[in-house]
Amino acid sequence: MKNDSTHKPHDRLAAYLVDDLAAVADIIRDRMASKHAPRIPEVTAHLVDAGGKRLRPMLTLAAARMCGYDGPYHVHLAATVEFIHTATLLHDDVVDESAQRRGRPTANLLWDNKSSVLVGDYLFSRSFQLMTETGSLDVLRILSNASATIAEGEVLQLTAAQNLATDEGIYLQVVRGKTAALFSAATEVGGVIAGAPEAHVKALFDYGDALGVAFQIVDDLLDYQGHSTAIGKNVGDDFRERKLTLPVIKAVAKADAEERAFWTRTIERGRQEDGDLEQALALLQKHGALTQTQDDALAWAGKARAALDGLPDHEVRDMLSDLADYVVSRIN
Amino acid sequence: MKNDSTHKPHDRLAAYLVDDLAAVADIIRDRMASKHAPRIPEVTAHLVDAGGKRLRPMLTLAAARMCGYDGPYHVHLAATVEFIHTATLLHDDVVDESAQRRGRPTANLLWDNKSSVLVGDYLFSRSFQLMTETGSLDVLRILSNASATIAEGEVLQLTAAQNLATDEGIYLQVVRGKTAALFSAATEVGGVIAGAPEAHVKALFDYGDALGVAFQIVDDLLDYQGHSTAIGKNVGDDFRERKLTLPVIKAVAKADAEERAFWTRTIERGRQEDGDLEQALALLQKHGALTQTQDDALAWAGKARAALDGLPDHEVRDMLSDLADYVVSRIN
Repeated sequence: MKNDSTHKPHDRLAAYLVDDLAAVADIIRDRMASKHAPRIPEVTAHLVDAGGKRLRPMLTLAAARMCGYDGPYHVHLAATVEFIHTATLLHDDVVDESAQRRGRPTANLLWDNKSSVLVGDYLFSRSFQLMTETGSLDVLRILSNASATIAEGEVLQLTAAQNLATDEGIYLQVVRGKTAALFSAATEVGGVIAGAPEAHVKALFDYGDALGVAFQIVDDLLDYQGHSTAIGKNVGDDFRERKLTLPVIKAVAKADAEERAFWTRTIERGRQEDGDLEQALALLQKHGALTQTQDDALAWAGKARAALDGLPDHEVRDMLSDLADYVVSRIN
Repeated sequence: MKNDSTHKPHDRLAAYLVDDLAAVADIIRDRMASKHAPRIPEVTAHLVDAGGKRLRPMLTLAAARMCGYDGPYHVHLAATVEFIHTATLLHDDVVDESAQRRGRPTANLLWDNKSSVLVGDYLFSRSFQLMTETGSLDVLRILSNASATIAEGEVLQLTAAQNLATDEGIYLQVVRGKTAALFSAATEVGGVIAGAPEAHVKALFDYGDALGVAFQIVDDLLDYQGHSTAIGKNVGDDFRERKLTLPVIKAVAKADAEERAFWTRTIERGRQEDGDLEQALALLQKHGALTQTQDDALAWAGKARAALDGLPDHEVRDMLSDLADYVVSRIN
């Protein structure tokens, strides 16, 4: 695969895992079916066909391959991880009352909130069936813990949003829950199913955790920096939804009295007017909040790369290292 | 416990299982906690403290005891079953836009839909953690299958409601999913964790399945017959929510052209006016739909009792037999 070296790390990893990814796609198609309730595959296909990057299942496959696994169950686990992710997206869009996801109308808009809630529950149950089939209690423990941590992070976000007292510590707790928990579980179970030694499993967990945090920080940064076509949602969504993310937390920490009044009105009280998003962006610029957020993302990507030092030399390890850079390169 | 014989079967079973039920209450209180997100125990406690009858966890405990189990894990499984049930209630109330549950305002009304969706997800994850702790892959398989069947039944109900083509076959499929799947899983895992022989496990499954169907038919009948104080919800809720349940399905099957137009307007088109509920009740009476529904419930209770014949003589077996009668006695 030497001639792939000019491609993006994500594409190189996908090329390396091409057969595994095809098997994952097969199992996803097979398990999202429902004999009795045709709405389930309709709703799921809408999201699955929109084609996420399959980043999380790739992490599981990559970890398993890197640890020398040659059984069939890394495919089940990769599909499990993607089902948990898809279920979370369906529920998130209900919670956020979102209208757009991956550049398409959300399922809650096309069908209704009911379908999004219940199809999410179905996919979540399917994910537990899949992981049970692996017969590994360690894997079940890791993934059920991750699921609880994800839900806990989402609930914490509910109360942390719209509250100017939310600081970087709480932000990190939310991010570790809602995003990094699934990244770290994805890499960890890849190692566990392969029977990798404890130190390697720990390194895989640390890599996934740091990559997940970097990924979410970049996402939150792009919400203020990106273009709606590139990120599949609208710039300023978090501001309009009054979510307190890292750029705003940094700007609030440096706000003078007048600026604080602005954040209180727009985020805490939700009384937003025309021109407020522009004003918010100006304050982020003034305090260097976007640059500092970018620095934080780069630091977490560095932690992810460093975690890989705990793993033996392997071409997949190099791809994962490049992937950490790639995840933060989205902001450049 | 002879002097308890005049009590309701539910109370006699609760008295027999008093220590086990206390252990279940402890584990529920312990596991519904969340260090990071205090809203989780708030929302959960609102529902748990309202005190459901704990019927489903009692089924698991009873099955395990009847099969001679003396380990600790029937308590985990009973709590698992109650968590799955509670998660389902939280999501149901969002889906149905309900305002009352167990005679109290619903969580979605007191907090918001977001909290109900996410706390439901949390409890669902917690339930998988609990069952993983039992170390039994058989139990994990049964309960993850049941979860998928529940969600499938709920989605099927979404499309079956408001559709006059829904017949008794589809109704039974919905009921088997949304209600009976958890009853039968509850009894089945009680036998499995006790290492009961296959024939006994099968009998326990059949008992739970038939009891669950009887229970739901009674619930649907009470929606037209009960009093809001007794059932903790309002008479006619299903009619107003345009749910096609067994009494209406039976009346629609016998409707003349004019009656059919009434059902089409009120259930399919949702154009309800003052006096429509009274008219619906009159049509149910006219066609004997309530009596026939009651007969069906009694027949399912009979099937539940008959399934117990496959189990050895035991005082708990007699209590479960009485419980089947008790479940349908709510309609008298």
